[in-house]
Amino acid sequence: MFISFEGADGVGKTTQLTLLADALTAAGVEVVVTREPGGTELGSDVRRLLLHGGHVDPRAEALLYAADRAHHVATLVRPALECGAVVLTDRYLDSSVAYQGAARSLGPHELRDLSLWATSGLLPDLTILLDADPDLASRRTQDRGEVDRVEREGAKFRAALREQFLTLAASEPERFTIVNAARSVDEVAEDVTSAVWGLLASSGRASGDGAA
Amino acid sequence: MFISFEGADGVGKTTQLTLLADALTAAGVEVVVTREPGGTELGSDVRRLLLHGGHVDPRAEALLYAADRAHHVATLVRPALECGAVVLTDRYLDSSVAYQGAARSLGPHELRDLSLWATSGLLPDLTILLDADPDLASRRTQDRGEVDRVEREGAKFRAALREQFLTLAASEPERFTIVNAARSVDEVAEDVTSAVWGLLASSGRASGDGAA
Repeated sequence: MFISFEGADGVGKTTQLTLLADALTAAGVEVVVTREPGGTELGSDVRRLLLHGGHVDPRAEALLYAADRAHHVATLVRPALECGAVVLTDRYLDSSVAYQGAARSLGPHELRDLSLWATSGLLPDLTILLDADPDLASRRTQDRGEVDRVEREGAKFRAALREQFLTLAASEPERFTIVNAARSVDEVAEDVTSAVWGLLASSGRASGDGAA
Repeated sequence: MFISFEGADGVGKTTQLTLLADALTAAGVEVVVTREPGGTELGSDVRRLLLHGGHVDPRAEALLYAADRAHHVATLVRPALECGAVVLTDRYLDSSVAYQGAARSLGPHELRDLSLWATSGLLPDLTILLDADPDLASRRTQDRGEVDRVEREGAKFRAALREQFLTLAASEPERFTIVNAARSVDEVAEDVTSAVWGLLASSGRASGDGAA
């Protein structure tokens, strides 16, 4: 089972992913937590290039994210899935499509195709989109003192990004669960847990049903 | 005018490219010399990841080369071509197709398509394939003390690589000129110069004809 968390910086992805991982582990589920870009050693190098380097051509940027994703899936995600773990990733292909498709000059379909080529077609079983007003998310990242290249792009970019994520979710309602992230951590976590437990139950993996 | 030099390590690409650049400059032609991977700052970082890192998934490798190429073309090659320079590059997309297609598990067509997407379809006007017996080229790189990940892959790999380059040249005879690199530097340079001067003359750019 492969679950991705998506949304803008500051919506609480890392917090919610950690809470979910703890809950799953407590329920006896084997969990692997990872992130993009940067879930592997190669990915960390790519992440550094992408987030803190100078100008990068948009196609080069898309290809670097795709390279990180290809390596991440081949060396970490697929092996973990094959061992039966639940893999939780902080960002996956929808971030590429939303960030690059919204703000830069590349179309969502070509970005999606690129990611699918990179990963030999691996899509998450469930994608949790943490959705909140862009200004709220932006204030949270400022409170953390985080300012990177993407975050410097301003309010217009953040609004376009939110729309991109919501459009992606609307186009694949069976894969996406949209969670209102403009609430307390506990309230958000309740919705996240509910979506994940629903999926685990339907696949026969929830704790207590005796399935492997 | 965009000219690429291709062939295995040790066939003399850098030497011949330098001699050609000197000859063109002496004839009053504006020349820009570059290489892949690594013709830009981003490219240098990518090159370091690729040539001296640990295991890299084949698709990730292809995507990293394509990222380097996208950035290289967008920020260096196209601007130089638009200024009227002759751009000489030490390796371009044929190296990706030959190296990765021959030795790894990816097909030449998907690698070519990836490069064409990365570069918005930029192909060289002329590609000079320096061809030599793989053992000769291998001895030359050993004499230079160069051993990187690609070069460690042995005689079988080098033979497959040569075949890949020759197959590519045969499939696009109008773009490729195959030069026998198992001769003296001067003999090889004579063939290279002849191919390039032929192209410059046909485009009205050779020195002495008065064209811009």
